[in-house]
Amino acid sequence: MRISELAREAATPLTAVKYYQREGLLPAGEKTAPNQTAYDRRHVERVRLVRALLETGGLSIAVTKQVLAVLDTDDAPLAEVFEVAQYAITDSRSPETPASRAARARIEDRVTAAGWCATTDNPGHETAARALDGLATIGFDAPDDYLDAYMTAAATAARADVAALQSRDGRDAIAELMVIGTVLGDPLFAGLRRIAQQDATHDVFPVATDGATS
Amino acid sequence: MRISELAREAATPLTAVKYYQREGLLPAGEKTAPNQTAYDRRHVERVRLVRALLETGGLSIAVTKQVLAVLDTDDAPLAEVFEVAQYAITDSRSPETPASRAARARIEDRVTAAGWCATTDNPGHETAARALDGLATIGFDAPDDYLDAYMTAAATAARADVAALQSRDGRDAIAELMVIGTVLGDPLFAGLRRIAQQDATHDVFPVATDGATS
Repeated sequence: MRISELAREAATPLTAVKYYQREGLLPAGEKTAPNQTAYDRRHVERVRLVRALLETGGLSIAVTKQVLAVLDTDDAPLAEVFEVAQYAITDSRSPETPASRAARARIEDRVTAAGWCATTDNPGHETAARALDGLATIGFDAPDDYLDAYMTAAATAARADVAALQSRDGRDAIAELMVIGTVLGDPLFAGLRRIAQQDATHDVFPVATDGATS
Repeated sequence: MRISELAREAATPLTAVKYYQREGLLPAGEKTAPNQTAYDRRHVERVRLVRALLETGGLSIAVTKQVLAVLDTDDAPLAEVFEVAQYAITDSRSPETPASRAARARIEDRVTAAGWCATTDNPGHETAARALDGLATIGFDAPDDYLDAYMTAAATAARADVAALQSRDGRDAIAELMVIGTVLGDPLFAGLRRIAQQDATHDVFPVATDGATS
């Protein structure tokens, strides 16, 4: 198929497809004539995946490239795939404004109290600590029960992530879900949390809207 | 204090502070001379908050403006504040590539099954459905137990969010936490989930690193 058809099939604007191409996020098509390139189903799936990582997952172009590179390396050890997945988190690599020491210590303290087996160079520490710093700017010093509830939520999701991995057949299928599931689990949770908040605050802060689901 | 001091106090690069100012995200300082403007503690806190929303929360400039506007409106009803908080989700307003109908129906189905009281125009539906679409591009059709685990996690966090709101004194303090807590709960969860994943996959996919916390 031509590039215009590729865009239509992937339900993605043509300008976006050309942009992905220019940024090296798509495999080359097949040259069928000097001015003509043919694309196939693999390209359609790749365009959809790139869009999901960039738009829904909120990854940068650079991180998306790393993610695709490790997926395209057929024999990358799963431990390495896992590490790339762990680092594919929106702000983990912008060193200009690191989290405060106090926030980092607080996260480490709760992780140790929960008995989790994790290393302090896990990028999640930095991301979670920055969120605490952000909450502190409005004078909210997250109490233990708040943090522990978020940790319980995180553990529930992580167990579901691992169970999902174990349901996949073959190394490639596992590697794909390891990376994409890690990235897209964030917006999945974010969306469901908005819905759960509406349920939890139903009586406290009612929002006048149409189209109730229940 | 001068703008350079403001930047230092807020631990934010001066270029970033000037950028926030140009984008109208900071209140004006006090003109103390034709070429001199003075800033105070309020500006320091605002710079930190803006940085948290943009960098940690991943919000766009436009959404950050909306969030700050509703916080700066002293008499905005809490239901309105809540609605702005709900919409302050990274991709909820980019209409070019909406979620598939199938994914939207799937989320609605599980929300109804869980008996949650929520409306379908809640932006969380779109975000969660897009995540499902992204997972489908690698052939992972999220099974019920996976989705339900994420819903349980979301409900756990939402209950903690509401409890935290109830611990705040006064309308302004509640409104602030409603918005900032909604935005920063996402990266808090994302960070903790990375740590929980390392714990959950400890034996399955060990990552060779230093600095164990436990």
